[in-house]
Amino acid sequence: MTACCHDHSKWISRWGKEDQVGSANYITVAKRLAALQSVQQGKVYDVSHVIGMDAPYMAPNQTPFLLSMWAGWKDSIKRRRKLGFRNDAGSNVDRLEMTTHVGTHIDALGHFSSGDRLYNGNCAEDLVTNWGLDKLGIEHAPPMITRGIMLDVAHFDGGEYLEPGRVVTPEDLQRACDNAGVTIESGDIVMIRTGWGRFFGVDNARYLHGEPGIDVPAAKWLVEREVTAIGVDNMAVEVLPNPDHGLGLPVHQYALADTGTYLIENLALEELAREKLHSFCFILLATKYRGATGCPVRPVAVI
Amino acid sequence: MTACCHDHSKWISRWGKEDQVGSANYITVAKRLAALQSVQQGKVYDVSHVIGMDAPYMAPNQTPFLLSMWAGWKDSIKRRRKLGFRNDAGSNVDRLEMTTHVGTHIDALGHFSSGDRLYNGNCAEDLVTNWGLDKLGIEHAPPMITRGIMLDVAHFDGGEYLEPGRVVTPEDLQRACDNAGVTIESGDIVMIRTGWGRFFGVDNARYLHGEPGIDVPAAKWLVEREVTAIGVDNMAVEVLPNPDHGLGLPVHQYALADTGTYLIENLALEELAREKLHSFCFILLATKYRGATGCPVRPVAVI
Amino acid sequence: MTACCHDHSKWISRWGKEDQVGSANYITVAKRLAALQSVQQGKVYDVSHVIGMDAPYMAPNQTPFLLSMWAGWKDSIKRRRKLGFRNDAGSNVDRLEMTTHVGTHIDALGHFSSGDRLYNGNCAEDLVTNWGLDKLGIEHAPPMITRGIMLDVAHFDGGEYLEPGRVVTPEDLQRACDNAGVTIESGDIVMIRTGWGRFFGVDNARYLHGEPGIDVPAAKWLVEREVTAIGVDNMAVEVLPNPDHGLGLPVHQYALADTGTYLIENLALEELAREKLHSFCFILLATKYRGATGCPVRPVAVI
Amino acid sequence: MTACCHDHSKWISRWGKEDQVGSANYITVAKRLAALQSVQQGKVYDVSHVIGMDAPYMAPNQTPFLLSMWAGWKDSIKRRRKLGFRNDAGSNVDRLEMTTHVGTHIDALGHFSSGDRLYNGNCAEDLVTNWGLDKLGIEHAPPMITRGIMLDVAHFDGGEYLEPGRVVTPEDLQRACDNAGVTIESGDIVMIRTGWGRFFGVDNARYLHGEPGIDVPAAKWLVEREVTAIGVDNMAVEVLPNPDHGLGLPVHQYALADTGTYLIENLALEELAREKLHSFCFILLATKYRGATGCPVRPVAVI
Repeated sequence: MTACCHDHSKWISRWGKEDQVGSANYITVAKRLAALQSVQQGKVYDVSHVIGMDAPYMAPNQTPFLLSMWAGWKDSIKRRRKLGFRNDAGSNVDRLEMTTHVGTHIDALGHFSSGDRLYNGNCAEDLVTNWGLDKLGIEHAPPMITRGIMLDVAHFDGGEYLEPGRVVTPEDLQRACDNAGVTIESGDIVMIRTGWGRFFGVDNARYLHGEPGIDVPAAKWLVEREVTAIGVDNMAVEVLPNPDHGLGLPVHQYALADTGTYLIENLALEELAREKLHSFCFILLATKYRGATGCPVRPVAVI
Repeated sequence: MTACCHDHSKWISRWGKEDQVGSANYITVAKRLAALQSVQQGKVYDVSHVIGMDAPYMAPNQTPFLLSMWAGWKDSIKRRRKLGFRNDAGSNVDRLEMTTHVGTHIDALGHFSSGDRLYNGNCAEDLVTNWGLDKLGIEHAPPMITRGIMLDVAHFDGGEYLEPGRVVTPEDLQRACDNAGVTIESGDIVMIRTGWGRFFGVDNARYLHGEPGIDVPAAKWLVEREVTAIGVDNMAVEVLPNPDHGLGLPVHQYALADTGTYLIENLALEELAREKLHSFCFILLATKYRGATGCPVRPVAVI
Repeated sequence: MTACCHDHSKWISRWGKEDQVGSANYITVAKRLAALQSVQQGKVYDVSHVIGMDAPYMAPNQTPFLLSMWAGWKDSIKRRRKLGFRNDAGSNVDRLEMTTHVGTHIDALGHFSSGDRLYNGNCAEDLVTNWGLDKLGIEHAPPMITRGIMLDVAHFDGGEYLEPGRVVTPEDLQRACDNAGVTIESGDIVMIRTGWGRFFGVDNARYLHGEPGIDVPAAKWLVEREVTAIGVDNMAVEVLPNPDHGLGLPVHQYALADTGTYLIENLALEELAREKLHSFCFILLATKYRGATGCPVRPVAVI
Repeated sequence: MTACCHDHSKWISRWGKEDQVGSANYITVAKRLAALQSVQQGKVYDVSHVIGMDAPYMAPNQTPFLLSMWAGWKDSIKRRRKLGFRNDAGSNVDRLEMTTHVGTHIDALGHFSSGDRLYNGNCAEDLVTNWGLDKLGIEHAPPMITRGIMLDVAHFDGGEYLEPGRVVTPEDLQRACDNAGVTIESGDIVMIRTGWGRFFGVDNARYLHGEPGIDVPAAKWLVEREVTAIGVDNMAVEVLPNPDHGLGLPVHQYALADTGTYLIENLALEELAREKLHSFCFILLATKYRGATGCPVRPVAVI
């Protein structure tokens, strides 16, 4: 059946054809140590949203987040009494169902294809199964402890947030760097605040109906600087709709499939903005669901 | 309906009746800073298992972990072509279903009751709903960055692991501390290695059919030392079956419902043992699923 | 825990306290035989909708209907080749998730309570578990082969359908009977056509935003005539909102909890109306999901 | 992408290339009427099992049947009180998750492929989507009201049931017909009792570890007689393992993909056997889940 697969050998990454980690290779031990040693106060800032049944989702590729009590204290006590236990220990165990791109989450490198090509010249026909990804799943994303940079462009149009369809350009990113007094370096995780995150869970219809974000040029600007991940306080990192109406999610293709760069979505960046924190130790620990195309996370900034 | 609720006012915690954080209060800013500043090399050790469809689960309170491809690249390209997009971006989006106590995970304080009483004198009748916990859910567990201690008792009976039903006593813990040259302090997260973790995902029937672990005396010993969490390389932290056959999961009751102490289960501690690492900076970031009784995590040790 | 349960002994049904079948007792062997013998042509009319991901649902008590391909031909052939099979048999197996009150469906007698009282004086505290109903689940609903009556009231206000909030009264039902030349008899299943069914799956927002239907007086009129089930071409059988704004779903309480009368929802009655078929052999075979509160069905009328 | 599809035009059925109904075409109006008119007593026999969480399933292509209470009376009353309702109507709404081939069920014609070919020369590459079958789904299976035949071969080896691996041959079927005094006719639904059904839900490990059943010759014998469906009191209709160990599920290929003949599995035939009922009016009404590859049913025999 691999007869269906095209030759993608020219897309092999700089890290060799076995690599499944991509831009996370930029986080060296030295980079990680420097990030940890930058911490002076021990203060933690949470940059994730609470994920509940009111979380926005994009149909049809996503389904609602569902959480229900599978086993409750009362029934479990009844069962345990029948087994002869007399201490009335009651279990509350919930069951959770979700497409893994809900809430604040990170995309696995295998989340997007360009045609039938996945990151590192892999063939989607071979790797994408009914039960997840045979390679490039989120379990391969290493713990990310590195320098985080928050670039605030929310006010660049004079308001508190940018509007849907507004492209965040390389020039915007440079200006935000200048404002913050930071320079992007290899292995950084860069988070861009557009201000759009204020509508997450508050006005989901609005949140999902277009968004400000980056287009391919800004993605290239960041990839050239060897960032490990690009995060935004919106649903898809990239501007929606794309200015070229014939293009659907080209930043996903470029970042994930072409260059092996991670994307982080639905970030909660308001507190960092209020505190004017632009550089910090950033920690993101993706849960190792085998073959998953992404997973909800709880990243933090530490100063 | 709260007429069904008993008076639990004498169970209010030292942190006041509004507290939902329990033993995580012990992780002060100073404690966290000290842990981060202990890092010398920048090396990371992953103490979690990969979570897949072969993960062990305890029926009937748990259901199998299921992961399937909800939307694949091929169908999504077909849909996008119909919408006029010409760049053939293919989405792979998986859907995941699980009871939240699968794989390496942390228990929320509301996971267990003693009769109808939850942590901090809360009434289960009021807080446990069809759609999760109204209080004491995992979204309240703060980011945990603190000192981690690994106590290795696996070889205390002369083999490579302890047997099911073997109680890990306070004396065992003291001996392991002495061996490691560590003293438990307030806010530490203590992980106990019984060696039982070797059967996770390898021989699930055996892994689930009883286990070595602590009983209430060792739990008390740890709680008196003000630990934030107790983790073990087994399914339930505590010894199974309990030596008193009339008791079902008394450590869960004592830790979660009575004292607000977190439990971490299914840890992967082999690498730490091989490297003889007993003290480190420990980081655990629980995903904020609203009202969930726990969640899979990817904790790491950093030195 | 049954201490929470009130005394409901005065609600024991005419069929004795062990009965779980309720109004289906009216379908005697003779009644069934007469219905079957009424068939003259062998023509079948389907009165159910196709159930797909576009089926309407009432949040939060219902979740969307989800159907996905759990195992597809391609992956299953790959697996079977590895097992040594050479005939390339490919399995397509879908997985389906739903609250059971989706599409054309029948309610189990245990679907509704009045306070903590279920049908036949049963106590909800005792019967309703995390995993379904211990009694009164849909598996107890016998095969229903009986006379079906279709009462058409859709045009009673001069249009093609009644409007939301329009109460279908006993007088309306009598008038529809007179129009059709039928008299309701014990064991009949009565289906009322309001015309509202035209919006099912076509304009779900409208379909769910109120509906024409019966109120308690018409339900009583039918129950006095000993019908086995009441079906309507709307989401809830009963008028929404109720004219008494302090009442929520009183017909469900009356029919299911008080009198043990089945309800059938989301019927597709347009074809029967076009053919002016008002009396026929009606067949409904509820799938025996243990403890389910209802189930999707495919009832037919045969003439 | 249909470039992957082979030319299957020689597999077009006798009913034309648009046909999605297959052998159900044999049930003519006259056939149906004759079946209904054969009913003399009005007695109903249920030939389905109750479907619960103890239902057998074949991993990995099937997942366990799960049923839980999504919304219960107590919480729903709380919510309705907040909305101003004073009648304390409590809803019990369960949520159900299953692969659709659980319990007594019928296979849709699109359930199986032979390579990339589905029934009627259709191409699996085109029809099988992430969200079900674009054609040949169970919603196309018409109501089946026809003559049912029960052939009892359970005692042919001298015991109460046949053993796993025992092939039911054409000669066995002829002998069972002779015993019963029946002749198979076009449009009949034939159910074969091997006795294996006694282990359903009682000893699932045994039930699933091989089974007696038909092989392709007996399937051909039945298809030549133009049956509409073949049902057996086992998991897969066909003998497992196949005597030719290089063949996996060849009867499924032959019946579904090659000849458009329906299969019914996990039938409960003990009562028919006890009553020595071999010919009856048979009714099976498949729920119209769009694109599903099968569905649980509750077929009945009526005499």
